[in-house]
Amino acid sequence: MNLSARNQLKGTIKGIKKGDLMAEVVVEVSGQDLVAIITAASVDRLGLKTGDSVAAVIKATEVMIAK
Amino acid sequence: MNLSARNQLKGTIKGIKKGDLMAEVVVEVSGQDLVAIITAASVDRLGLKTGDSVAAVIKATEVMIAK
Amino acid sequence: MNLSARNQLKGTIKGIKKGDLMAEVVVEVSGQDLVAIITAASVDRLGLKTGDSVAAVIKATEVMIAK
Amino acid sequence: MNLSARNQLKGTIKGIKKGDLMAEVVVEVSGQDLVAIITAASVDRLGLKTGDSVAAVIKATEVMIAK
Amino acid sequence: MNLSARNQLKGTIKGIKKGDLMAEVVVEVSGQDLVAIITAASVDRLGLKTGDSVAAVIKATEVMIAK
Amino acid sequence: MNLSARNQLKGTIKGIKKGDLMAEVVVEVSGQDLVAIITAASVDRLGLKTGDSVAAVIKATEVMIAK
Repeated sequence: MNLSARNQLKGTIKGIKKGDLMAEVVVEVSGQDLVAIITAASVDRLGLKTGDSVAAVIKATEVMIAK
Repeated sequence: MNLSARNQLKGTIKGIKKGDLMAEVVVEVSGQDLVAIITAASVDRLGLKTGDSVAAVIKATEVMIAK
Repeated sequence: MNLSARNQLKGTIKGIKKGDLMAEVVVEVSGQDLVAIITAASVDRLGLKTGDSVAAVIKATEVMIAK
Repeated sequence: MNLSARNQLKGTIKGIKKGDLMAEVVVEVSGQDLVAIITAASVDRLGLKTGDSVAAVIKATEVMIAK
Repeated sequence: MNLSARNQLKGTIKGIKKGDLMAEVVVEVSGQDLVAIITAASVDRLGLKTGDSVAAVIKATEVMIAK
Repeated sequence: MNLSARNQLKGTIKGIKKGDLMAEVVVEVSGQDLVAIITAASVDRLGLKTGDSVAAVIKATEVMIAK
Protein backbone atom coordinates (compact mmCIF):
# COMPACT_ATOMS: atom_id res chain seq x y z
CA MET A 1 0.00 0.00 0.00
CA ASN A 2 1.28 3.45 -0.95
CA LEU A 3 -0.23 6.40 0.88
CA SER A 4 -0.66 9.96 -0.40
CA ALA A 5 0.47 11.37 2.98
CA ARG A 6 3.95 12.63 2.20
CA ASN A 7 5.36 12.69 5.71
CA GLN A 8 6.39 9.27 6.92
CA LEU A 9 9.11 9.78 9.51
CA LYS A 10 10.95 6.63 10.58
CA GLY A 11 11.44 6.12 14.29
CA THR A 12 11.16 3.84 17.31
CA ILE A 13 8.35 3.64 19.86
CA LYS A 14 9.62 4.97 23.20
CA GLY A 15 6.43 4.61 25.20
CA ILE A 16 2.69 3.99 25.03
CA LYS A 17 0.07 5.22 27.49
CA LYS A 18 -3.42 3.88 27.01
CA GLY A 19 -6.52 5.74 28.16
CA ASP A 20 -10.11 4.52 28.00
CA LEU A 21 -10.58 5.22 24.27
CA MET A 22 -7.45 6.99 23.10
CA ALA A 23 -3.74 6.22 23.48
CA GLU A 24 -0.62 8.33 23.45
CA VAL A 25 2.30 6.88 21.50
CA VAL A 26 5.73 8.53 21.75
CA VAL A 27 8.00 7.90 18.77
CA GLU A 28 11.68 8.87 18.81
CA VAL A 29 12.64 10.30 15.42
CA SER A 30 16.39 10.98 15.14
CA GLY A 31 16.61 12.06 18.77
CA GLN A 32 13.44 14.19 18.81
CA ASP A 33 10.17 12.97 20.37
CA LEU A 34 6.99 12.91 18.32
CA VAL A 35 3.68 12.27 20.13
CA ALA A 36 0.73 10.63 18.38
CA ILE A 37 -2.80 10.40 19.76
CA ILE A 38 -4.52 7.43 18.14
CA THR A 39 -7.32 5.16 19.33
CA ALA A 40 -6.47 2.46 21.88
CA ALA A 41 -8.14 0.03 19.45
CA SER A 42 -5.50 0.87 16.83
CA VAL A 43 -2.69 0.23 19.32
CA ASP A 44 -4.15 -3.25 19.83
CA ARG A 45 -4.90 -3.91 16.15
CA LEU A 46 -1.32 -3.04 15.11
CA GLY A 47 0.14 -4.73 18.19
CA LEU A 48 2.24 -1.66 18.98
CA LYS A 49 4.78 -1.94 21.80
CA THR A 50 7.84 -0.08 23.06
CA GLY A 51 10.87 -0.68 20.84
CA ASP A 52 8.90 -1.23 17.62
CA SER A 53 10.25 0.33 14.42
CA VAL A 54 7.42 2.43 13.01
CA ALA A 55 6.73 5.46 10.85
CA ALA A 56 4.94 8.55 12.11
CA VAL A 57 2.62 9.51 9.27
CA ILE A 58 1.39 13.10 8.91
CA LYS A 59 -0.65 14.69 6.09
CA ALA A 60 1.20 17.74 4.74
CA THR A 61 -1.81 20.02 5.31
CA GLU A 62 -1.53 19.34 9.07
CA VAL A 63 2.01 20.71 9.45
CA MET A 64 2.57 24.31 10.59
CA ILE A 65 5.82 26.28 10.60
CA ALA A 66 7.14 28.28 13.57
CA LYS A 67 10.04 30.70 13.23
CA MET B 1 4.27 32.24 23.51
CA ASN B 2 3.95 28.60 24.54
CA LEU B 3 1.78 26.38 22.38
CA SER B 4 -0.18 23.29 23.42
CA ALA B 5 0.90 21.44 20.26
CA ARG B 6 3.45 18.96 21.59
CA ASN B 7 5.31 18.24 18.37
CA GLN B 8 7.76 20.98 17.49
CA LEU B 9 10.50 19.37 15.39
CA LYS B 10 13.56 21.54 14.78
CA GLY B 11 14.85 21.70 11.24
CA THR B 12 16.00 23.80 8.29
CA ILE B 13 13.96 24.97 5.28
CA LYS B 14 15.19 23.14 2.18
CA GLY B 15 12.79 24.61 -0.35
CA ILE B 16 9.59 26.64 -0.80
CA LYS B 17 7.18 26.41 -3.73
CA LYS B 18 4.43 29.02 -3.81
CA GLY B 19 1.11 28.43 -5.55
CA ASP B 20 -1.68 30.97 -5.96
CA LEU B 21 -3.05 30.61 -2.40
CA MET B 22 -1.08 27.81 -0.78
CA ALA B 23 2.64 27.10 -0.47
CA GLU B 24 4.66 23.94 0.03
CA VAL B 25 7.52 24.24 2.51
CA VAL B 26 10.04 21.40 2.80
CA VAL B 27 11.82 21.22 6.16
CA GLU B 28 14.80 18.93 6.73
CA VAL B 29 14.53 17.34 10.19
CA SER B 30 17.63 15.28 11.09
CA GLY B 31 18.05 14.06 7.52
CA GLN B 32 14.36 13.32 6.85
CA ASP B 33 12.13 15.63 4.79
CA LEU B 34 8.92 16.99 6.24
CA VAL B 35 6.48 18.77 3.91
CA ALA B 36 4.11 21.49 5.17
CA ILE B 37 1.24 23.00 3.19
CA ILE B 38 0.54 26.45 4.60
CA THR B 39 -0.93 29.59 3.03
CA ALA B 40 1.32 31.66 0.76
CA ALA B 41 0.30 34.62 2.94
CA SER B 42 1.92 32.94 5.96
CA VAL B 43 5.15 32.36 4.02
CA ASP B 44 5.24 36.11 3.39
CA ARG B 45 4.17 37.14 6.90
CA LEU B 46 6.91 35.00 8.52
CA GLY B 47 9.43 35.91 5.79
CA LEU B 48 10.28 32.23 5.28
CA LYS B 49 13.19 31.42 2.96
CA THR B 50 15.49 28.48 2.19
CA GLY B 51 18.08 27.95 4.91
CA ASP B 52 15.93 29.33 7.76
CA SER B 53 16.00 27.49 11.09
CA VAL B 54 12.38 26.69 11.92
CA ALA B 55 10.22 24.23 13.82
CA ALA B 56 7.64 22.02 12.14
CA VAL B 57 4.67 22.12 14.51
CA ILE B 58 2.11 19.28 14.53
CA LYS B 59 -0.84 18.70 16.89
CA ALA B 60 -0.57 15.21 18.42
CA THR B 61 -4.07 14.24 17.27
CA GLU B 62 -2.88 14.64 13.64
CA VAL B 63 -0.13 12.00 13.83
CA MET B 64 -0.80 8.42 12.68
CA ILE B 65 1.40 5.36 13.16
CA ALA B 66 2.35 2.89 10.40
CA LYS B 67 4.00 -0.43 11.17
CA MET C 1 2.40 -1.48 5.95
CA ASN C 2 -0.46 -1.29 8.43
CA LEU C 3 -1.75 2.14 9.33
CA SER C 4 -3.38 3.25 12.59
CA ALA C 5 -6.00 5.26 10.65
CA ARG C 6 -9.10 3.15 11.06
CA ASN C 7 -11.11 4.43 8.15
CA GLN C 8 -10.00 2.97 4.84
CA LEU C 9 -12.99 3.07 2.50
CA LYS C 10 -12.59 1.11 -0.72
CA GLY C 11 -13.62 2.86 -3.92
CA THR C 12 -12.78 3.87 -7.48
CA ILE C 13 -11.32 7.16 -8.71
CA LYS C 14 -13.99 9.03 -10.68
CA GLY C 15 -12.02 12.13 -11.54
CA ILE C 16 -8.88 14.14 -10.75
CA LYS C 17 -8.45 17.91 -11.10
CA LYS C 18 -4.94 19.22 -10.63
CA GLY C 19 -4.21 22.76 -9.48
CA ASP C 20 -0.80 24.36 -9.15
CA LEU C 21 0.10 22.70 -5.83
CA MET C 22 -2.97 20.78 -4.73
CA ALA C 23 -5.25 18.30 -6.48
CA GLU C 24 -8.84 17.25 -6.01
CA VAL C 25 -9.48 13.52 -6.26
CA VAL C 26 -13.07 12.24 -6.35
CA VAL C 27 -13.50 8.65 -5.17
CA GLU C 28 -16.78 6.77 -5.61
CA VAL C 29 -17.47 4.71 -2.48
CA SER C 30 -20.51 2.44 -2.89
CA GLY C 31 -22.35 5.04 -4.93
CA GLN C 32 -21.45 8.06 -2.78
CA ASP C 33 -18.74 10.56 -3.80
CA LEU C 34 -15.84 11.31 -1.46
CA VAL C 35 -13.56 14.25 -2.30
CA ALA C 36 -9.91 14.30 -1.22
CA ILE C 37 -7.60 17.30 -1.42
CA ILE C 38 -4.02 16.04 -1.59
CA THR C 39 -0.87 17.52 -3.13
CA ALA C 40 -0.46 17.34 -6.91
CA ALA C 41 2.96 15.79 -6.17
CA SER C 42 1.24 12.86 -4.42
CA VAL C 43 -1.05 12.31 -7.42
CA ASP C 44 2.09 11.98 -9.56
CA ARG C 45 4.05 9.87 -7.03
CA LEU C 46 1.19 7.34 -6.71
CA GLY C 47 0.39 7.56 -10.44
CA LEU C 48 -3.29 8.10 -9.68
CA LYS C 49 -5.71 8.09 -12.62
CA THR C 50 -9.45 7.77 -13.23
CA GLY C 51 -10.65 4.18 -12.79
CA ASP C 52 -8.00 3.18 -10.22
CA SER C 53 -9.09 1.06 -7.27
CA VAL C 54 -8.01 2.95 -4.16
CA ALA C 55 -8.87 3.44 -0.51
CA ALA C 56 -9.90 6.77 0.96
CA VAL C 57 -8.07 6.94 4.29
CA ILE C 58 -9.39 9.13 7.12
CA LYS C 59 -8.17 9.42 10.72
CA ALA C 60 -11.09 8.80 13.11
CA THR C 61 -10.53 12.13 14.92
CA GLU C 62 -11.32 13.94 11.65
CA VAL C 63 -14.85 12.54 11.26
CA MET C 64 -17.87 14.53 12.49
CA ILE C 65 -21.47 13.36 12.82
CA ALA C 66 -24.51 15.28 11.51
CA LYS C 67 -28.05 14.32 12.46
CA MET D 1 -27.66 25.07 7.40
CA ASN D 2 -25.39 24.25 4.48
CA LEU D 3 -21.82 23.29 5.29
CA SER D 4 -18.71 23.79 3.14
CA ALA D 5 -17.45 20.29 4.04
CA ARG D 6 -18.06 18.34 0.84
CA ASN D 7 -18.07 14.85 2.26
CA GLN D 8 -21.35 13.98 3.94
CA LEU D 9 -21.71 10.20 3.74
CA LYS D 10 -25.13 8.85 4.70
CA GLY D 11 -25.18 5.91 7.07
CA THR D 12 -26.56 4.31 10.22
CA ILE D 13 -25.03 4.28 13.71
CA LYS D 14 -23.90 0.74 14.53
CA GLY D 15 -22.43 1.39 17.96
CA ILE D 16 -21.31 4.06 20.41
CA LYS D 17 -18.63 3.69 23.09
CA LYS D 18 -18.30 6.58 25.51
CA GLY D 19 -15.06 7.38 27.31
CA ASP D 20 -14.54 10.04 29.96
CA LEU D 21 -14.30 12.96 27.49
CA MET D 22 -14.38 11.44 24.03
CA ALA D 23 -16.67 8.92 22.35
CA GLU D 24 -16.25 6.50 19.48
CA VAL D 25 -19.17 6.35 17.06
CA VAL D 26 -19.25 3.61 14.39
CA VAL D 27 -21.33 4.47 11.32
CA GLU D 28 -22.15 1.88 8.67
CA VAL D 29 -21.90 3.47 5.23
CA SER D 30 -23.07 1.11 2.46
CA GLY D 31 -21.62 -1.92 4.21
CA GLN D 32 -18.30 -0.34 5.24
CA ASP D 33 -17.62 0.88 8.79
CA LEU D 34 -16.56 4.45 9.43
CA VAL D 35 -15.32 5.38 12.92
CA ALA D 36 -15.69 8.90 14.32
CA ILE D 37 -14.06 10.21 17.48
CA ILE D 38 -16.14 13.10 18.79
CA THR D 39 -16.66 14.50 22.28
CA ALA D 40 -18.98 12.60 24.62
CA ALA D 41 -20.74 15.94 25.13
CA SER D 42 -21.65 16.02 21.42
CA VAL D 43 -23.08 12.49 21.62
CA ASP D 44 -25.37 13.75 24.40
CA ARG D 45 -26.21 17.08 22.72
CA LEU D 46 -27.24 15.36 19.46
CA GLY D 47 -28.90 12.49 21.35
CA LEU D 48 -27.03 9.93 19.22
CA LYS D 49 -27.98 6.28 19.63
CA THR D 50 -27.54 2.99 17.77
CA GLY D 51 -29.79 2.79 14.71
CA ASP D 52 -29.92 6.55 14.05
CA SER D 53 -29.70 7.73 10.45
CA VAL D 54 -26.80 10.18 10.32
CA ALA D 55 -24.19 11.61 8.00
CA ALA D 56 -20.47 11.22 8.54
CA VAL D 57 -19.03 14.64 7.67
CA ILE D 58 -15.39 14.98 6.61
CA LYS D 59 -13.53 18.05 5.31
CA ALA D 60 -11.92 17.25 1.94
CA THR D 61 -8.46 18.32 3.14
CA GLU D 62 -8.57 15.49 5.74
CA VAL D 63 -8.93 12.66 3.22
CA MET D 64 -5.85 10.73 2.02
CA ILE D 65 -5.61 8.24 -0.82
CA ALA D 66 -3.96 4.79 -0.56
CA LYS D 67 -3.21 2.69 -3.64
CA MET E 1 -29.08 19.37 10.49
CA ASN E 2 -27.23 19.36 13.79
CA LEU E 3 -23.47 18.86 13.65
CA SER E 4 -21.22 17.29 16.29
CA ALA E 5 -18.60 20.02 15.75
CA ARG E 6 -18.96 22.14 18.86
CA ASN E 7 -17.39 25.34 17.59
CA GLN E 8 -19.73 27.34 15.40
CA LEU E 9 -18.66 30.98 15.65
CA LYS E 10 -21.09 33.49 14.15
CA GLY E 11 -19.59 36.15 11.92
CA THR E 12 -19.67 38.03 8.63
CA ILE E 13 -17.66 37.35 5.47
CA LYS E 14 -15.14 40.16 4.99
CA GLY E 15 -13.46 38.90 1.85
CA ILE E 16 -13.02 35.90 -0.46
CA LYS E 17 -9.97 35.13 -2.62
CA LYS E 18 -10.36 32.25 -5.03
CA GLY E 19 -7.39 30.23 -6.28
CA ASP E 20 -7.47 27.46 -8.88
CA LEU E 21 -8.81 24.77 -6.50
CA MET E 22 -8.92 26.32 -3.06
CA ALA E 23 -10.34 29.57 -1.73
CA GLU E 24 -9.54 31.76 1.26
CA VAL E 25 -12.55 33.10 3.14
CA VAL E 26 -12.04 35.75 5.83
CA VAL E 27 -14.80 35.86 8.47
CA GLU E 28 -15.02 38.66 11.01
CA VAL E 29 -16.00 37.22 14.40
CA SER E 30 -16.63 39.93 17.01
CA GLY E 31 -13.84 42.11 15.64
CA GLN E 32 -11.27 39.33 15.16
CA ASP E 33 -10.49 37.85 11.73
CA LEU E 34 -10.79 34.11 11.15
CA VAL E 35 -9.40 32.66 7.92
CA ALA E 36 -10.84 29.50 6.35
CA ILE E 37 -9.30 27.56 3.47
CA ILE E 38 -12.07 25.64 1.73
CA THR E 39 -12.47 24.42 -1.84
CA ALA E 40 -13.44 26.97 -4.50
CA ALA E 41 -16.22 24.53 -5.43
CA SER E 42 -17.73 24.95 -1.93
CA VAL E 43 -17.64 28.74 -2.25
CA ASP E 44 -19.71 28.35 -5.43
CA ARG E 45 -22.02 25.65 -4.05
CA LEU E 46 -22.90 27.76 -0.97
CA GLY E 47 -22.96 30.98 -3.01
CA LEU E 48 -20.67 32.69 -0.50
CA LYS E 49 -20.05 36.42 -0.94
CA THR E 50 -18.73 39.36 1.08
CA GLY E 51 -21.25 40.51 3.70
CA ASP E 52 -22.90 37.12 4.20
CA SER E 53 -23.78 36.07 7.74
CA VAL E 54 -22.10 32.70 8.29
CA ALA E 55 -20.70 30.47 10.99
CA ALA E 56 -17.07 29.38 11.11
CA VAL E 57 -17.23 25.72 12.11
CA ILE E 58 -14.24 24.05 13.79
CA LYS E 59 -13.95 20.55 15.28
CA ALA E 60 -12.76 20.79 18.90
CA THR E 61 -9.83 18.43 18.28
CA GLU E 62 -8.40 20.99 15.82
CA VAL E 63 -8.07 23.84 18.34
CA MET E 64 -4.76 24.48 20.11
CA ILE E 65 -4.08 26.79 23.05
CA ALA E 66 -1.24 29.33 23.20
CA LYS E 67 -0.31 31.10 26.42
CA MET F 1 8.09 32.43 18.11
CA ASN F 2 5.86 33.28 15.19
CA LEU F 3 3.52 30.58 13.96
CA SER F 4 2.19 30.07 10.43
CA ALA F 5 -1.29 29.29 11.79
CA ARG F 6 -3.24 32.42 10.91
CA ASN F 7 -6.06 32.08 13.39
CA GLN F 8 -5.06 33.13 16.88
CA LEU F 9 -8.22 34.27 18.65
CA LYS F 10 -7.68 36.04 21.98
CA GLY F 11 -9.84 34.93 24.85
CA THR F 12 -10.10 33.80 28.47
CA ILE F 13 -10.25 30.25 29.83
CA LYS F 14 -13.73 29.62 31.25
CA GLY F 15 -13.27 26.02 32.31
CA ILE F 16 -11.05 22.95 32.05
CA LYS F 17 -12.16 19.32 32.33
CA LYS F 18 -9.39 16.74 32.43
CA GLY F 19 -9.87 13.15 31.28
CA ASP F 20 -7.34 10.34 31.52
CA LEU F 21 -5.32 11.43 28.46
CA MET F 22 -7.17 14.34 26.91
CA ALA F 23 -8.60 17.56 28.32
CA GLU F 24 -11.38 19.89 27.27
CA VAL F 25 -10.58 23.59 27.53
CA VAL F 26 -13.37 26.15 27.04
CA VAL F 27 -12.17 29.59 25.92
CA GLU F 28 -14.49 32.59 25.84
CA VAL F 29 -13.78 34.64 22.72
CA SER F 30 -15.77 37.91 22.65
CA GLY F 31 -18.79 36.28 24.25
CA GLN F 32 -18.74 33.08 22.19
CA ASP F 33 -17.41 29.77 23.58
CA LEU F 34 -14.66 27.90 21.77
CA VAL F 35 -13.86 24.34 22.89
CA ALA F 36 -10.38 22.85 22.47
CA ILE F 37 -9.46 19.21 22.96
CA ILE F 38 -5.76 19.00 23.82
CA THR F 39 -3.73 16.48 25.81
CA ALA F 40 -3.95 16.63 29.60
CA ALA F 41 -0.13 16.72 29.53
CA SER F 42 -0.27 20.03 27.63
CA VAL F 43 -2.67 21.51 30.18
CA ASP F 44 -0.06 20.69 32.85
CA ARG F 45 2.95 21.79 30.78
CA LEU F 46 1.40 25.22 30.06
CA GLY F 47 -0.06 25.48 33.57
CA LEU F 48 -3.49 26.34 32.16
CA LYS F 49 -6.20 27.38 34.63
CA THR F 50 -9.57 29.12 34.60
CA GLY F 51 -9.21 32.88 34.08
CA ASP F 52 -5.98 32.69 32.03
CA SER F 53 -5.64 34.97 29.02
CA VAL F 54 -4.85 32.71 26.09
CA ALA F 55 -5.17 32.45 22.33
CA ALA F 56 -7.11 29.73 20.59
CA VAL F 57 -4.94 28.76 17.62
CA ILE F 58 -6.47 27.13 14.54
CA LYS F 59 -4.84 26.27 11.19
CA ALA F 60 -6.84 27.86 8.36
CA THR F 61 -7.28 24.53 6.55
CA GLU F 62 -9.28 23.26 9.58
CA VAL F 63 -12.01 25.92 9.39
CA MET F 64 -15.29 25.19 7.58
CA ILE F 65 -18.05 27.62 6.67
CA ALA F 66 -21.76 27.07 7.34
CA LYS F 67 -24.43 29.27 5.80
